[in-house]
Amino acid sequence: MTAIAVVAGDGIGQEVVPVAQEVLALLHPEYEFYPVEIGYGKWKKTRTACTPDDITLLRGADAILFGAVTTPPAADYRSVVLQIRKELDLYANLRPVRGEGVDIMVVRENTEGLYSGIEWQEEDRASTLRVITRKGSERIARTACRIARERRNLLTIGNKANVIKSDAFFRDICIRTAEEEGVPYTTAFIDALTLDVLMHPGRYDVIVTTNIFGDILSDAAAYLVGGLGLLPSANIGDSHALFEPVHGSAPDIAGQGIANPVAAIRSAAMLLAHLGDTRGAALIDNALRLTAAKGITTPDTGGTASTREVGDAVCTAIRRL
Amino acid sequence: MTAIAVVAGDGIGQEVVPVAQEVLALLHPEYEFYPVEIGYGKWKKTRTACTPDDITLLRGADAILFGAVTTPPAADYRSVVLQIRKELDLYANLRPVRGEGVDIMVVRENTEGLYSGIEWQEEDRASTLRVITRKGSERIARTACRIARERRNLLTIGNKANVIKSDAFFRDICIRTAEEEGVPYTTAFIDALTLDVLMHPGRYDVIVTTNIFGDILSDAAAYLVGGLGLLPSANIGDSHALFEPVHGSAPDIAGQGIANPVAAIRSAAMLLAHLGDTRGAALIDNALRLTAAKGITTPDTGGTASTREVGDAVCTAIRRL
Ligand SMILES: CC(C)[C@H](C(=O)O)[C@@H](O)C(=O)O
Ligand SMILES: CC(C)[C@H](C(=O)O)[C@@H](O)C(=O)O
Repeated sequence: MTAIAVVAGDGIGQEVVPVAQEVLALLHPEYEFYPVEIGYGKWKKTRTACTPDDITLLRGADAILFGAVTTPPAADYRSVVLQIRKELDLYANLRPVRGEGVDIMVVRENTEGLYSGIEWQEEDRASTLRVITRKGSERIARTACRIARERRNLLTIGNKANVIKSDAFFRDICIRTAEEEGVPYTTAFIDALTLDVLMHPGRYDVIVTTNIFGDILSDAAAYLVGGLGLLPSANIGDSHALFEPVHGSAPDIAGQGIANPVAAIRSAAMLLAHLGDTRGAALIDNALRLTAAKGITTPDTGGTASTREVGDAVCTAIRRL
Repeated sequence: MTAIAVVAGDGIGQEVVPVAQEVLALLHPEYEFYPVEIGYGKWKKTRTACTPDDITLLRGADAILFGAVTTPPAADYRSVVLQIRKELDLYANLRPVRGEGVDIMVVRENTEGLYSGIEWQEEDRASTLRVITRKGSERIARTACRIARERRNLLTIGNKANVIKSDAFFRDICIRTAEEEGVPYTTAFIDALTLDVLMHPGRYDVIVTTNIFGDILSDAAAYLVGGLGLLPSANIGDSHALFEPVHGSAPDIAGQGIANPVAAIRSAAMLLAHLGDTRGAALIDNALRLTAAKGITTPDTGGTASTREVGDAVCTAIRRL
């Protein structure tokens, strides 16, 4: 039995996740879905956004379908997404960027680097320790190599080894891993790489890089496909995996039924592929293409359809394919 | 007497810097120019790219006109640019990006953050300490506010305070400084900001941010104007200032006389403005526009002119303006 934990979260998460879940349920009526309440909404009621029990529930799932959580500016509020990534050791953040002339997979290390949490403040200075471990670098490099082999087999190692020694460490481990795995690679400095991805996206297949560089690079690359709105992502570990749209909870349009469910549905496709159903994932992608070609899109992409109407059209297309 | 140290450096630096110097000499025959040999070429001869005597020579200048230096992959080679920035305490890296619908000044902190140089390696991990000081943050924030006032008076504070505590420290100091200086500001997370600068460049005037974020952001923004090729930059401290094209030494096209001198000439314009001659700086900008409008450009921008021909055309235009 395959168990899917469903975290709708806040804002438009509540609208797009049910649609994505429907798509999954259509393809896999045998899946068991169970909701887990996590996020700012819960925090407002209970002062905790994500409890140890919630984490236990997530651990029990074969995969997690995640919407979006609102991060309030409160000082005592810890990012739920970061907490879950850490607790479930979801070390690989996969961010595919696909569109006209662009088919790039950013593989971002998701647990260390500047996100170490080792920081302290004195009167006149604040310090954050950027930690890069051999284990962390090796496992993300292996993940990137595996993904490259399933794609066009070209790996780019994004780094700033010309200045930062911990990045020379990272780069060298990635190089060694790529050589062991027999995956052709190049290395590039992250500043020049960010520009070159924008100028010549066709040159890139899989890009592996450290945590914060991947964070910025994937947002920059999103420009090539019109922004974050339609992008899915995966957070993968050895024992757990979470799939979420890159977009946020968009409180400004929440509750109107007009949120674009495409990123959430694409995240569902990544979830299927992760569970081994690549045929199902391809079906969803095709159904999304057909639906868009028919002009059935939400207002943000120029259409007049509602969240639900897009979802229904995708389900109809899947039934016919 | 105004003394200008001239570091042509390596590769095309040797070609574009003399042209930029000529433009300066045309407008200011009274300037005294003196060459300082620094870079990889020198390193190959002497095993030192930049000696303490060189630094002393640079210190003696009212401003430094800098070309480009080649950084070889040798492990014992320390980045000359970083060395000079540190020794002369050139804490503000100004990167204007200007073009059709884009007029952004990235003000990058240039001395601390991940560039602290405080790093160590153990067997299975490498660490870099990211240090943000109050003094460092205050002075870059003041610089950004001063520049904003001379422009459209809007400051954006790029940060990742939602994850990194040293960035919350930086952001809060920038906010306080902007309030003291009466400069309207907004704050933005660096990942979302990088994307939004690409999507809506017209919304931005001056962006202040920490060292590595500014490094990546300014390269990303360069996409809006077709790449780094034409961009100038300034490295400013309280006592010294260095002006350099953003592009590198381009060994592949060096020696052919076809390097584009526009970035170096624009850097010369920034140098003039820094020394108080804003009229001279504007003259150069106009002469560059006229020259480009006449189609006198080097091959990289679609023309057939040589480096020298572009320089001559700019000088002719200045004489006529
Ligand atoms: C919200 C924030 C903590 C997060 C990150 O920095 O990882 C986000 O930007 C992302 O990319 O998922
Ligand atoms: C060459 C490198 C050390 C330098 C930097 O990182 O600052 C360069 O990228 C720049 O932006 O001037």
